[in-house]
Amino acid sequence: MPRPFIIGDLPAGPRNSLADVPGLRVGHRTIIRGDLRTGVSAILPHDGDLFREKVPGAVHVINGFGKSAGLMQLDELGQIETPILLTNTLSVPACSEALIRRAIAANPAIGRATGTVNALVGECNDGYLSDIQALAVTPEDAEAALAAASEDFARGAVGAGTGMSCFGFKGGIGTASRRLDLDGAPYHLGVLVLSNFGRPGDLRLPDGRRIAPPEAPAPPPSERGSIIVVMGTDIPLDHRQLQRVIRRAGVGLARLGSFWGHGSGDVAIGFTTAWRIRHAEKADLIPIRMLNENRIDLLFRAMSDATEEAILDSMLCAPAMHGRDGHFRPSLADSI
Amino acid sequence: MPRPFIIGDLPAGPRNSLADVPGLRVGHRTIIRGDLRTGVSAILPHDGDLFREKVPGAVHVINGFGKSAGLMQLDELGQIETPILLTNTLSVPACSEALIRRAIAANPAIGRATGTVNALVGECNDGYLSDIQALAVTPEDAEAALAAASEDFARGAVGAGTGMSCFGFKGGIGTASRRLDLDGAPYHLGVLVLSNFGRPGDLRLPDGRRIAPPEAPAPPPSERGSIIVVMGTDIPLDHRQLQRVIRRAGVGLARLGSFWGHGSGDVAIGFTTAWRIRHAEKADLIPIRMLNENRIDLLFRAMSDATEEAILDSMLCAPAMHGRDGHFRPSLADSI
Amino acid sequence: MPRPFIIGDLPAGPRNSLADVPGLRVGHRTIIRGDLRTGVSAILPHDGDLFREKVPGAVHVINGFGKSAGLMQLDELGQIETPILLTNTLSVPACSEALIRRAIAANPAIGRATGTVNALVGECNDGYLSDIQALAVTPEDAEAALAAASEDFARGAVGAGTGMSCFGFKGGIGTASRRLDLDGAPYHLGVLVLSNFGRPGDLRLPDGRRIAPPEAPAPPPSERGSIIVVMGTDIPLDHRQLQRVIRRAGVGLARLGSFWGHGSGDVAIGFTTAWRIRHAEKADLIPIRMLNENRIDLLFRAMSDATEEAILDSMLCAPAMHGRDGHFRPSLADSI
Amino acid sequence: MPRPFIIGDLPAGPRNSLADVPGLRVGHRTIIRGDLRTGVSAILPHDGDLFREKVPGAVHVINGFGKSAGLMQLDELGQIETPILLTNTLSVPACSEALIRRAIAANPAIGRATGTVNALVGECNDGYLSDIQALAVTPEDAEAALAAASEDFARGAVGAGTGMSCFGFKGGIGTASRRLDLDGAPYHLGVLVLSNFGRPGDLRLPDGRRIAPPEAPAPPPSERGSIIVVMGTDIPLDHRQLQRVIRRAGVGLARLGSFWGHGSGDVAIGFTTAWRIRHAEKADLIPIRMLNENRIDLLFRAMSDATEEAILDSMLCAPAMHGRDGHFRPSLADSI
Repeated sequence: MPRPFIIGDLPAGPRNSLADVPGLRVGHRTIIRGDLRTGVSAILPHDGDLFREKVPGAVHVINGFGKSAGLMQLDELGQIETPILLTNTLSVPACSEALIRRAIAANPAIGRATGTVNALVGECNDGYLSDIQALAVTPEDAEAALAAASEDFARGAVGAGTGMSCFGFKGGIGTASRRLDLDGAPYHLGVLVLSNFGRPGDLRLPDGRRIAPPEAPAPPPSERGSIIVVMGTDIPLDHRQLQRVIRRAGVGLARLGSFWGHGSGDVAIGFTTAWRIRHAEKADLIPIRMLNENRIDLLFRAMSDATEEAILDSMLCAPAMHGRDGHFRPSLADSI
Repeated sequence: MPRPFIIGDLPAGPRNSLADVPGLRVGHRTIIRGDLRTGVSAILPHDGDLFREKVPGAVHVINGFGKSAGLMQLDELGQIETPILLTNTLSVPACSEALIRRAIAANPAIGRATGTVNALVGECNDGYLSDIQALAVTPEDAEAALAAASEDFARGAVGAGTGMSCFGFKGGIGTASRRLDLDGAPYHLGVLVLSNFGRPGDLRLPDGRRIAPPEAPAPPPSERGSIIVVMGTDIPLDHRQLQRVIRRAGVGLARLGSFWGHGSGDVAIGFTTAWRIRHAEKADLIPIRMLNENRIDLLFRAMSDATEEAILDSMLCAPAMHGRDGHFRPSLADSI
Repeated sequence: MPRPFIIGDLPAGPRNSLADVPGLRVGHRTIIRGDLRTGVSAILPHDGDLFREKVPGAVHVINGFGKSAGLMQLDELGQIETPILLTNTLSVPACSEALIRRAIAANPAIGRATGTVNALVGECNDGYLSDIQALAVTPEDAEAALAAASEDFARGAVGAGTGMSCFGFKGGIGTASRRLDLDGAPYHLGVLVLSNFGRPGDLRLPDGRRIAPPEAPAPPPSERGSIIVVMGTDIPLDHRQLQRVIRRAGVGLARLGSFWGHGSGDVAIGFTTAWRIRHAEKADLIPIRMLNENRIDLLFRAMSDATEEAILDSMLCAPAMHGRDGHFRPSLADSI
Repeated sequence: MPRPFIIGDLPAGPRNSLADVPGLRVGHRTIIRGDLRTGVSAILPHDGDLFREKVPGAVHVINGFGKSAGLMQLDELGQIETPILLTNTLSVPACSEALIRRAIAANPAIGRATGTVNALVGECNDGYLSDIQALAVTPEDAEAALAAASEDFARGAVGAGTGMSCFGFKGGIGTASRRLDLDGAPYHLGVLVLSNFGRPGDLRLPDGRRIAPPEAPAPPPSERGSIIVVMGTDIPLDHRQLQRVIRRAGVGLARLGSFWGHGSGDVAIGFTTAWRIRHAEKADLIPIRMLNENRIDLLFRAMSDATEEAILDSMLCAPAMHGRDGHFRPSLADSI
């Protein structure tokens, strides 16, 4: 899908994708059958074992009406030690269990000779198009998403994005990236979104147009959306800097017309691949690098712009979809 | 079990229990078979349907090395809409699923005509005495704990506390309460703990004695404990006041010798039964009451004292236990 | 100044001003002499003694590169007990001292028979147009702003806004309000901003136009702006609800093109006049009202829209200004 | 003053003082005249210009009933760019102004060619013994404290500690340190406290004794104390680690019998001298080191123990004192 909107003046990475971060892969499991329009998406920050080689990470809650798993420990320790799974709200337990079993299989010391494992799962509510009460996602579906991970991945109504809605249009998975040059070397900041937020009629396009779905249903009494924004970068950032950067996810949402609605679970998760945290580290003190804080505006712009662009990408890549009980979401691509 | 230590000078409630809060009940499901020493405990703030009639609640993270579920939304909305389940770390997904299925069964509109449900589950790691890798707790076990709820409940090595350890002794479930008179009427603040924290040798008794287990194993390279502190009260408190009160859970831990270790997931959850939040509330503005802030020291003392006493209670009620692979925890009751 | 941009579809209050909240007044002291372009603005939530009758309040930090005073206690206690003063960054101590002396004069028990007083002062850096090193604001200037308080107040380059800049244009004081009907009665949510943020060239007007100042100076190596957003309402909100509402100030900034720059101290302060907190309250439990959380989206929209409109108002009311060392800021009113 | 209580089993540094951190100095200005018992204490993390060479820092609020200045920016940027001044509550503006003027004098670009400066000032309320309404501290007093800075410094009723009270005894300035060996090299973690908290009768000595002042006044209707805990170390820690370490200040308070009273402004500030942040840094990426998180329990113990010991030190070093209006505080040294 071509991108009709280029946000900001920072250059995109070669794929304009979260996978511009070297070593990072994304996989999907899409479930479309009967009344189901759901799935799982998996983000693997690197191709090693994340429990043994964790990545520095952070979380920022824009609006906490959501049920994501693993956020408390991520906030305390600043470490991501499983792949990140995205799915529908009521399938978080199944995906958590899949990550736990997978980590134990690879690291039999978990819960015995060493601590337990913190499964990281983000979610949105796809109940408008899909029968969310079915709790249809299984640990096997989560495994399938993990197994499908690749540097090239589909966008739109795929994986966890299969049944999502955004501003009354079809939402789903979108991505974008920005290239930044630091000390003369190229780095990338990438964003992937699972978009499921925004009231019909509130969408503002970057050119100022307001676009409502052609046959918008009456707005629900309370918004029941959500968005998960995942930021990855190879720029070295400490935990505070990671938090500052991903906080700007909220800028991208607001520019598109959202006011971070009450019923929306809007969560940003970020990590850097600049170094790895060894579970069995022997040294007491670890050499790392961090960003000169005076340069951080560059990353704030990259984060704001890539979030905005990734959300638009998620909508533009998703064709119109019919779901349960005659529910329907048109495609933004057909309206602009 | 008698209580050899009375903490502070505020009077206890009639049961000296979380269940001194009117209408509140606690139930356990204890699992002891083969290498398993685990279970589930359930706290029901009132006897109605919590999804339709939520209670005002709050969370405070003392140290976030833990995997409890449902905390983000509790922090944002200040509402508890399921019973609180406590279990072992790797059984959080099973307990979350049980709460989800139970809520849907009672409220078929969930995920369809209304939003989803936020399952609230606290956990500690009982892997020293129990085979935590077995993921042995089932949704049926969670249902059994909920069904067993009563104003009178067992303490010590029961329910989620079955396999827990505390300062090298057997830990588990403990409780205490304090009575407070406000505007001439009696109120209660109760605490229930699931204790699983503290390094062997660090325990300070209220009389100044330091008590180590008779055959303490060498301290683990990193503490892998946790404690969940649940506070309930019938005193009307707004969300900020609830947070201030439950923050004092950390005082109780520290007085007993804990420094809130790195590897410990120390979480306090609190709620008031002073009013209920109707899911289908029609009024725009709701009359409530809140505490005169100038009186809050009284609650800070009650929280600090009841937490300290409940932790001691959890240890003193728990007999010595043998677990998996020859592991053993002596009882504090045999050492003082 | 007429308002060329109407934001959103909620109706404005009769004045379209923070002073639509009954009893609320605003006053300015403007200092223009030599190289000085600075001043003080005062917001009085009600016409009583705020130390004896405090108002419930809250603070949200969008980006914390700032030096406002009094925020820690406001966050802990949820109480505002002095008028809110706004001034330039280096004059915060003088304004704090003025508030302290004023409170002591009215309440001689402060620091003797009762506690001290928490002076609340917000600030932005007007150093581009004004000689900020002069520390020119005196406690007498602060008194003058307080004495000038009225329901009708000037906007633009007045009071604390005298020397401020916004997106490379002249910034300053702006305001807007929204009327909300709850349980059949009218209420108001008002916003006043002290605008001093935004990089030249980043401004996006609500109609999609990007507007840069005609002779924009090169962007500074790091943004050195700030914005203080003050929200007042007569809607009863508890502390958590106040925080959720004022968090949406960030939406207003983002819609106008800001990415909440690194060097900007972006702070939102909010309060409700729905009830007062008596310093000498005798009752233990206080009857109040709070908002049905299911209605809060209405306030989120009001906050987002009023913030955006108040920022535009601050720029459109401010004529072009010459300042120290030949520095100049054009007026947005001359560019649209 | 000898130390009758040794807390924990980690070794103290050579001075058992915050000044065991190489290059760190502390100075006092003591004001005793008429009804005044007050002063200023200054902590200089290194002997260079802190605006040009900042140190990484963090803040943790235990209980926010206080008026310290500079905390918001410290939390956002993780940088300390002035010496830390401690004083009485109502003299914060005078000390802030002194730091601002001092920074401008050394760096004339402040507020002109570069940003403003964030003055860091902690405070407690010494109004029981001193006439706090006099606002007696001047910028010259602050300069005098800064000029007096030395590796050897007095403790007890000196500087900002002159008029402070603790558990009904005389409080003031105390210090302690712990030596930690990392990767085979020695490091130090030091703590300095300004103690002014605790209700008479609540003090628990490390040996279990409860000690009340001989003629304790009736407890005040609400506690009006505070404590500022300043932690310095040469161990490399990132911002999240600094926060985790200083959070354990609350452990030290609780062990001594405090429940972090409502009216107490209990604030911990921490910094590391392991590297400096250059204001005019040219590189984009900065090499630093951070602690292996698996070793952090060592620092948690050091922080908890040193805080507890420093508080006892502050009391034991302070002789009995008579103050305004016949008020009197006995010395703990006379009671044990």
